[in-house]
Amino acid sequence: MTTPARRGRPGYDLESLLGVAVKLFNERGYDGTSMEDLSRKLGITKSAIYHHVPSKEELLRLAVDRALNGLFAVAHEMEAQDGRAIDRLEFLVRGSVAVLAEQLPFVTLLLRVRGNTKAERAALARRREFDRLVTELVRQAAAEGDVRPDVDPAVTARLLYGMVNSLIEWYRPQARRRSTANGDGAEHGATPDELADAVCKIAFTGLRT
Amino acid sequence: MTTPARRGRPGYDLESLLGVAVKLFNERGYDGTSMEDLSRKLGITKSAIYHHVPSKEELLRLAVDRALNGLFAVAHEMEAQDGRAIDRLEFLVRGSVAVLAEQLPFVTLLLRVRGNTKAERAALARRREFDRLVTELVRQAAAEGDVRPDVDPAVTARLLYGMVNSLIEWYRPQARRRSTANGDGAEHGATPDELADAVCKIAFTGLRT
Repeated sequence: MTTPARRGRPGYDLESLLGVAVKLFNERGYDGTSMEDLSRKLGITKSAIYHHVPSKEELLRLAVDRALNGLFAVAHEMEAQDGRAIDRLEFLVRGSVAVLAEQLPFVTLLLRVRGNTKAERAALARRREFDRLVTELVRQAAAEGDVRPDVDPAVTARLLYGMVNSLIEWYRPQARRRSTANGDGAEHGATPDELADAVCKIAFTGLRT
Repeated sequence: MTTPARRGRPGYDLESLLGVAVKLFNERGYDGTSMEDLSRKLGITKSAIYHHVPSKEELLRLAVDRALNGLFAVAHEMEAQDGRAIDRLEFLVRGSVAVLAEQLPFVTLLLRVRGNTKAERAALARRREFDRLVTELVRQAAAEGDVRPDVDPAVTARLLYGMVNSLIEWYRPQARRRSTANGDGAEHGATPDELADAVCKIAFTGLRT
């Protein structure tokens, strides 16, 4: 059974419907977007949407779970590794940058979740779990003598991920071009790998020469 | 002329009205908050609100201008200083952390502005102006040999302020207590000065020992 196309517009599968919903949530806010808005944007009826998902909240859940699943997949891969905590921390940061770059609209939505609904509170709980995991890793690296002891590990972890998460504000992969000497290349120029390099250089060894 | 108190509630001056409005905008989103919601929250009529401000957009403008004026005041103070760009950059970062900590709800609103209204677009334009100023300072410090040359100055500037701006996500000055060895002290423990120290240590010299 497929969703019939209406007025010449293509039908949507769950994936493309989710993509449009997430874009709209990011533009207008989740609370500020109704199923009516989504229906208008898609050019299909609300009942055609309900054919795919039972509620707006379910769209949110699917979207933020995609971001969270990506981040936790990196975390589990990281936990399976031997070696020093500082190296696992760098692995986690690089993997997180890759997830942010690849799933940008989904992570953007996740990071803007406020906690007004059950799905949002569940997402916030998983975010806190991820934060605790980062903090624990920083703490361990500090205990091994690889992370500076003069900043609270919880603060270090939050500042580190503050840097990582800021990518959602300025990284626009669809507009890739090389940065120029005098332009604001930050918006456009970098691949996910180059971004991860930049984050690790600044965060691990600082911007000062 | 003062706003009469209604149903036993105190009257509001513009300042306290603005405080409640900003709190509500941050909880529900600016787009998702109506003057009706604000009127209910305040326990006064909409016309009592319109006695103080002509529109919801004017409340937004007043709020984000407070945050922006604070940041630009630091920038102007910074520009008046002699010496190396790297020292001016540190001055700007410390001053920005102080503004964030002191004007937390106002800066939070500023950083969530989406650009759907004229007031929001004006705020975004001033944010971009501030970003350019930071990038220019990083570029100058790199030219003076004090900032690493292997990351694009625009990227460095954005990562640095990604770290600074992340404070709005986790710093809660009203819940001050000392951090503990195993707790997540990051939420509560630090004064603005301690926060600025932490940001400068991590950003300028890195988290690695």
